[in-house]
Amino acid sequence: MKQIKIVTIGGGSSYTPELIEGFINRQAQLNIKEIWLVDIEEGREKLEIVGAMAKRMVEAAGLPWEVHLTLDRREALKDADFVTTQFRVGLLDARIRDERIPLSHGLIGQETNGAGGIFKAFRTIPVILAIIKDMKELCPNAWLVNFTNPSGMVTEAAIKVGGWKKTIGLCNVPIGLVKMANAVMGVAEDSEELFTKFAGLNHFHWHRVWDKDGNEVTAHIIDEVYKPENKGKYAGVKNVRDLAFNFEQVRDTGLLPCSYHRYYYITNDMLKSEMAEYAEGKTRAEVVKRTEAELFELYKDPALNYKPEQLTKRGGTHYSDAACEVVASIVNDKRTQMVVSTQNNGAISDLPYDCVVEVSALITSHGAEALNWGSFPPATRGILQVQKAMEEVVIDAAVTGDYGKALQAFTVNPLIPSGAIARDLLNEMLVANKNYLPQFSAKIAELEAAGVTYVAK
Amino acid sequence: MKQIKIVTIGGGSSYTPELIEGFINRQAQLNIKEIWLVDIEEGREKLEIVGAMAKRMVEAAGLPWEVHLTLDRREALKDADFVTTQFRVGLLDARIRDERIPLSHGLIGQETNGAGGIFKAFRTIPVILAIIKDMKELCPNAWLVNFTNPSGMVTEAAIKVGGWKKTIGLCNVPIGLVKMANAVMGVAEDSEELFTKFAGLNHFHWHRVWDKDGNEVTAHIIDEVYKPENKGKYAGVKNVRDLAFNFEQVRDTGLLPCSYHRYYYITNDMLKSEMAEYAEGKTRAEVVKRTEAELFELYKDPALNYKPEQLTKRGGTHYSDAACEVVASIVNDKRTQMVVSTQNNGAISDLPYDCVVEVSALITSHGAEALNWGSFPPATRGILQVQKAMEEVVIDAAVTGDYGKALQAFTVNPLIPSGAIARDLLNEMLVANKNYLPQFSAKIAELEAAGVTYVAK
Amino acid sequence: MKQIKIVTIGGGSSYTPELIEGFINRQAQLNIKEIWLVDIEEGREKLEIVGAMAKRMVEAAGLPWEVHLTLDRREALKDADFVTTQFRVGLLDARIRDERIPLSHGLIGQETNGAGGIFKAFRTIPVILAIIKDMKELCPNAWLVNFTNPSGMVTEAAIKVGGWKKTIGLCNVPIGLVKMANAVMGVAEDSEELFTKFAGLNHFHWHRVWDKDGNEVTAHIIDEVYKPENKGKYAGVKNVRDLAFNFEQVRDTGLLPCSYHRYYYITNDMLKSEMAEYAEGKTRAEVVKRTEAELFELYKDPALNYKPEQLTKRGGTHYSDAACEVVASIVNDKRTQMVVSTQNNGAISDLPYDCVVEVSALITSHGAEALNWGSFPPATRGILQVQKAMEEVVIDAAVTGDYGKALQAFTVNPLIPSGAIARDLLNEMLVANKNYLPQFSAKIAELEAAGVTYVAK
Amino acid sequence: MKQIKIVTIGGGSSYTPELIEGFINRQAQLNIKEIWLVDIEEGREKLEIVGAMAKRMVEAAGLPWEVHLTLDRREALKDADFVTTQFRVGLLDARIRDERIPLSHGLIGQETNGAGGIFKAFRTIPVILAIIKDMKELCPNAWLVNFTNPSGMVTEAAIKVGGWKKTIGLCNVPIGLVKMANAVMGVAEDSEELFTKFAGLNHFHWHRVWDKDGNEVTAHIIDEVYKPENKGKYAGVKNVRDLAFNFEQVRDTGLLPCSYHRYYYITNDMLKSEMAEYAEGKTRAEVVKRTEAELFELYKDPALNYKPEQLTKRGGTHYSDAACEVVASIVNDKRTQMVVSTQNNGAISDLPYDCVVEVSALITSHGAEALNWGSFPPATRGILQVQKAMEEVVIDAAVTGDYGKALQAFTVNPLIPSGAIARDLLNEMLVANKNYLPQFSAKIAELEAAGVTYVAK
Repeated sequence: MKQIKIVTIGGGSSYTPELIEGFINRQAQLNIKEIWLVDIEEGREKLEIVGAMAKRMVEAAGLPWEVHLTLDRREALKDADFVTTQFRVGLLDARIRDERIPLSHGLIGQETNGAGGIFKAFRTIPVILAIIKDMKELCPNAWLVNFTNPSGMVTEAAIKVGGWKKTIGLCNVPIGLVKMANAVMGVAEDSEELFTKFAGLNHFHWHRVWDKDGNEVTAHIIDEVYKPENKGKYAGVKNVRDLAFNFEQVRDTGLLPCSYHRYYYITNDMLKSEMAEYAEGKTRAEVVKRTEAELFELYKDPALNYKPEQLTKRGGTHYSDAACEVVASIVNDKRTQMVVSTQNNGAISDLPYDCVVEVSALITSHGAEALNWGSFPPATRGILQVQKAMEEVVIDAAVTGDYGKALQAFTVNPLIPSGAIARDLLNEMLVANKNYLPQFSAKIAELEAAGVTYVAK
Repeated sequence: MKQIKIVTIGGGSSYTPELIEGFINRQAQLNIKEIWLVDIEEGREKLEIVGAMAKRMVEAAGLPWEVHLTLDRREALKDADFVTTQFRVGLLDARIRDERIPLSHGLIGQETNGAGGIFKAFRTIPVILAIIKDMKELCPNAWLVNFTNPSGMVTEAAIKVGGWKKTIGLCNVPIGLVKMANAVMGVAEDSEELFTKFAGLNHFHWHRVWDKDGNEVTAHIIDEVYKPENKGKYAGVKNVRDLAFNFEQVRDTGLLPCSYHRYYYITNDMLKSEMAEYAEGKTRAEVVKRTEAELFELYKDPALNYKPEQLTKRGGTHYSDAACEVVASIVNDKRTQMVVSTQNNGAISDLPYDCVVEVSALITSHGAEALNWGSFPPATRGILQVQKAMEEVVIDAAVTGDYGKALQAFTVNPLIPSGAIARDLLNEMLVANKNYLPQFSAKIAELEAAGVTYVAK
Repeated sequence: MKQIKIVTIGGGSSYTPELIEGFINRQAQLNIKEIWLVDIEEGREKLEIVGAMAKRMVEAAGLPWEVHLTLDRREALKDADFVTTQFRVGLLDARIRDERIPLSHGLIGQETNGAGGIFKAFRTIPVILAIIKDMKELCPNAWLVNFTNPSGMVTEAAIKVGGWKKTIGLCNVPIGLVKMANAVMGVAEDSEELFTKFAGLNHFHWHRVWDKDGNEVTAHIIDEVYKPENKGKYAGVKNVRDLAFNFEQVRDTGLLPCSYHRYYYITNDMLKSEMAEYAEGKTRAEVVKRTEAELFELYKDPALNYKPEQLTKRGGTHYSDAACEVVASIVNDKRTQMVVSTQNNGAISDLPYDCVVEVSALITSHGAEALNWGSFPPATRGILQVQKAMEEVVIDAAVTGDYGKALQAFTVNPLIPSGAIARDLLNEMLVANKNYLPQFSAKIAELEAAGVTYVAK
Repeated sequence: MKQIKIVTIGGGSSYTPELIEGFINRQAQLNIKEIWLVDIEEGREKLEIVGAMAKRMVEAAGLPWEVHLTLDRREALKDADFVTTQFRVGLLDARIRDERIPLSHGLIGQETNGAGGIFKAFRTIPVILAIIKDMKELCPNAWLVNFTNPSGMVTEAAIKVGGWKKTIGLCNVPIGLVKMANAVMGVAEDSEELFTKFAGLNHFHWHRVWDKDGNEVTAHIIDEVYKPENKGKYAGVKNVRDLAFNFEQVRDTGLLPCSYHRYYYITNDMLKSEMAEYAEGKTRAEVVKRTEAELFELYKDPALNYKPEQLTKRGGTHYSDAACEVVASIVNDKRTQMVVSTQNNGAISDLPYDCVVEVSALITSHGAEALNWGSFPPATRGILQVQKAMEEVVIDAAVTGDYGKALQAFTVNPLIPSGAIARDLLNEMLVANKNYLPQFSAKIAELEAAGVTYVAK
């Protein structure tokens, strides 16, 4: 079996132990020579803590894998076989701003949706493109496995703008939804007995489910999970508050929604709930920041050489494991059926041919082979199309730093009411993110000169 | 020249004098035998007043046309050549409810957009289908010229559900926009010197403009009309308050918006403005109701035999004249370039092949021949696609009376925040419209039993 | 495991032993209660011979399966779980006419391509629709596994015209092509190590191949198999003469052709070769008829209770085995990757959404889940599109019996030169097939009255 | 009115008098300063003869237009407003080879279809691209009005490869078909009373016709013109022999074919007819060459200062006049409805978005505004799609000089039987055209080395 070199950008992430555990669990499938954990100066301390722990984990597993920690991305990328990305530009403080600023205007504040998601894309896309620039030079044959959010837009930028075709984008949400379907149908949590088929965009997909006899059970699961009288019967996804959908509306789609559809299907209810948390300083980002601090305290323990239970509560669980499965599936041509972000090429007829979609696919040694989906019925088709269009505008704005384009993205985004409120919010967020948006620097200077300020609220 | 019989459903409308004037102005192009003004019992008084005036106008013009007034639609339709529709189910009181109920929930209340537009479709579509049922029997070769709002959805229902291919939908908004372009470019108000090309949906279209030398002047007109410093330089459309767009966003589209895009591009600003009017009992419907009452007072004057100046202020001006031009263009194969609602057939690549779109077309004796438009760039494409999808869901709900579908329409509509607020609003509006929604009667009874009520606010 | 009833229409076929063997080989996966072999009066003798042998095979395998022979299709269909079709309307004599009549005009005569294929469709489609009519009444939940040729058109008629969504069409050609790729790449004949992906139409598809390391080896296989200097290195498909392609042209497509592409890529060379056989009375149909007679002699041997070696030479080998694999895959939700004819739904972007295509798919308990293919480059796209259009016209003609449509099919078919020659050929073939074309009976009578005759040549 | 400079590449053509006459007839609409007739050394004599005559015509009309003759294309292009192209690479001798070589192999030999059309494209496309390269430098705002054949492919190369968006391609065939429809319907030859709508590709389009009352008369015209009993009732197009279609097949399309469809709808009949002419040395090119020699004799007459009657017999009549109308329509924003080759942009849903199609369009000052056509029914759709795909491959081969691509073009072309015959024909024609195909020079040298020769037959 060929020896491989894996590079993880954002190696100082609190998720790294799950990633390492994922590789350890697949040791029979992976002949790893080196794992390189890369971070930037700002994340040096976290890298050292979690990196030391990663080394302990590998050692405890009795594996000969080298674990390298570095702040030199180019050194790490040299001859890499796989590059996984889990970095967060601006760290959790940027996420806190992404959540709290919109909420301070009475609008949805969320990591990957609404204004927050747009700004996360603005900060992240230039960095992924810089990484790809390095990869073209240093490891032109490597696979890029992206699980940096907003995963769909970052993957589209990597493939379409960066031209890196060998990119696969990941998300943990579908994994949770499969587990939920399993629970409803009474099969084991990790069973592959049910056939599931997903299509849409990252954090914006739908799925259908069939049982082993070939009966479609989508409607049955909708009833079991979303009928008001069944409220609470099945657990949701950690990252998304578990508010009730309007049942008749979901049933009308004929498709199972993803957890994040709550931001679009019950926007106002989600907003009310978020506003309450905002008032108490308990937005998701703030909670995660505290959890993460606790995790790093744990990680410091030189006796800890396994993934602690507490990480599972962190929210992004399964993400890293999915990344490991993608790597193992590519290396071994496992043809595992997974849900990934990949180029559309007509798999979803309603979306542009060359855009990135999130669909069920077989992960082969030559990449993702998507199952064909076809067309959506009008109600799902329409919101899917505007979401993708919004993503395209966001990517364009992120690359060009064009203010009109950024304002357009805010206008088209379904979670941001248009008008003066959108413009004011955009302006404030631009100023608040000035350290991470070189592409918008001229406009930000202009805004500051005109008196736009950001004060943490 | 062949003699023709024209039937106007909703003949008691205050617009009828404009329609009659339009025919009189085209007397050289139209050999009219009979004009039948049809209304229902509820509108008898208005029909008698405006019908008498119509007769005076025809007489004053010295024309041999017979003007018939009737409450018997079937009698009127017999052997008709053209059927024009300008009826309003539930009269202006229904429109007042369409506007005031959403506003009472803090949401956009508007005749053809948002919740109000959906309910207008719910009330109107069953009636247009009933008319078509009669037409199939009584005048199978007639043209249906629809200017009943929401004109796009009503036209789509007529063509796709009713199967009446010979339907042309009309709107006066493009006429105003051409006049505005003419004003900016310094040519005569009614000049056809500029070449304009429109595409989109009713009350949701964009256009491009070229001067006589072939230079595209779209960007120039955007600058002239929408740059903040040019505010107020050019007049807008009567029915839509003239709030400023976010200039950079409009400029980014590269296309001239329609007046109604304000509901989508500056939603929040429009809402604030509407809320102020709501508080004073001066919503558009209420103002129109007063204007209309005054108009009917004028119409009663037995000396009045021409269209009074005051009608122009009514808001829908040019609508009826456009209808007359369509009739004249069909009769004479004039091939006039007009903006009409017609079946897409690929004219807009981004929308379903068989849906109804509003596009520039040549009006020939065999119907509308659309100019090809092609594809929109992402930002306009996305909101156009979701708008059309919403229309499809609305039509489906209007035809089936399915509650899940109605809730879906409210959820997909970009002007209605989703969640409990959408459901509550839908429920209240269903109860408020109970007299006009036989297709939803079972659900309405259920809602009433559950305590949902409507009290005028 | 649920007990199943399998019905085989055309049970008297010489292929039946392969089918029975296929089921026996999968006895662990299939809990068969009954196998019904159905034929018509014309095929009674063959049914009795091969049916007796089928019984011996099952008995020799020690299986408790009931094997029923019947001429009563409706009795057989009652409560069936699977219906497989392998019938041949007009028996091999019709195929001989399909081949010899075109050749007598100097044109390609072939079972599934050109004029012969069109007439096979004309004879077969009405029968498949009649079977489906019975199935709707007698076994509304059964799967229809079609391997009656022309398999793609018959499957499209079943799904689109008959409305039987649970139809899967089969072909043995892809199986042979996978074996060939395996041979070139030096892996075992039945290995699944290579990843292959097929798309196109029945007998008109292309494929790509990747090795286990993810390298695309399509171009390498093209070179190995089709470079002139490698001629004869790898065996082709039995049914298709193994003439050399124009290498540069195949290489330019960038895709591996199917064996039947020779009829389109080297039409003239194929024709010359066929003409030589025609002159000697050795067209493929004539050869097959002799082989079949020999087979039935073998089958009569009461000691023969296994599939004889000679059947493999028959040409259609693997067809029946593929059918068994489809059945086993549906019953056990095996998700085997196979190449089947199924509804497009956008899997091939260049073809109508609702047409039937032949693509790589996972065979699940709820049917075929196609891998997405996307778009073809121009040279392959164009000939694929005209081929599908031709199929659509053929199906339309087969269903309606419209002469203009039949002539259109002949005109559009790339293997039939258009003009008087096409008309004369069509007329002669209509008359020659008069016993099997009730839908064309009026036209045939008219042609006969006008002196058109058919004399075996 | 702005003064304009018109440049005609291939000014020595025998059509030049028609072009000049066309301009003279539109003198009220065109303020021409200069007309530059450009040719190459090979055409110097013809340029001088016809150029002198052009000067006489302008003088006789009493117009102050300057007529310049030059062999210096760059001098001519400087600051041009319109560039019209009517050149023929290799002169009529090349056309003779295009016709006679295929016929010598028993295949269709034609100027714009089959192997001849492909080679005309191979010779012409590099030249049009060179002209555009000059235009980018010398007259970046000029319109390119192309009527050099194969007009559709040359126009597509100009727009897509050359990037010259301001290109309009022309053909005279639709003009003749409108005249034929007028004749059938009994209106004046040049009447615009009927509404016609064309779509397809150059020399491969269909059309529909409506009368002034809005009745579609397409089927009626098909009956009148193509029913066997009406043979000869209406005249066809000069360039195409007037053989009878198979009536039922044409009627089945529901669309009026173009004259060139005979090459596809009655290929064999056309071939027989061509073979007879070939045997007598009377292929179309040979006849035209004689006609042209006679024309130039006439043109030498210093007394001749008007277009002689004999030019009309030449075949391409109306071509130049159409070019003049395009120029006049652009200059005056006349919005004349004409049939032109222009970029598809979705006007024909079945073809690639960015390809060039031939459709009815309004000719405005900013270019062609196509009427939307939509989708074709299968029989027409299929052959249209393969024809366009063939064109794409031809253009690709013409630009790259790739032999595999050229062989692909021959294989995909419906008029060339595939196989060894196609390869042999391709090879011979490459050698025969060696002086005009620099892009294929390496391959041609290789072929010659391998013994491929061309001897005029």
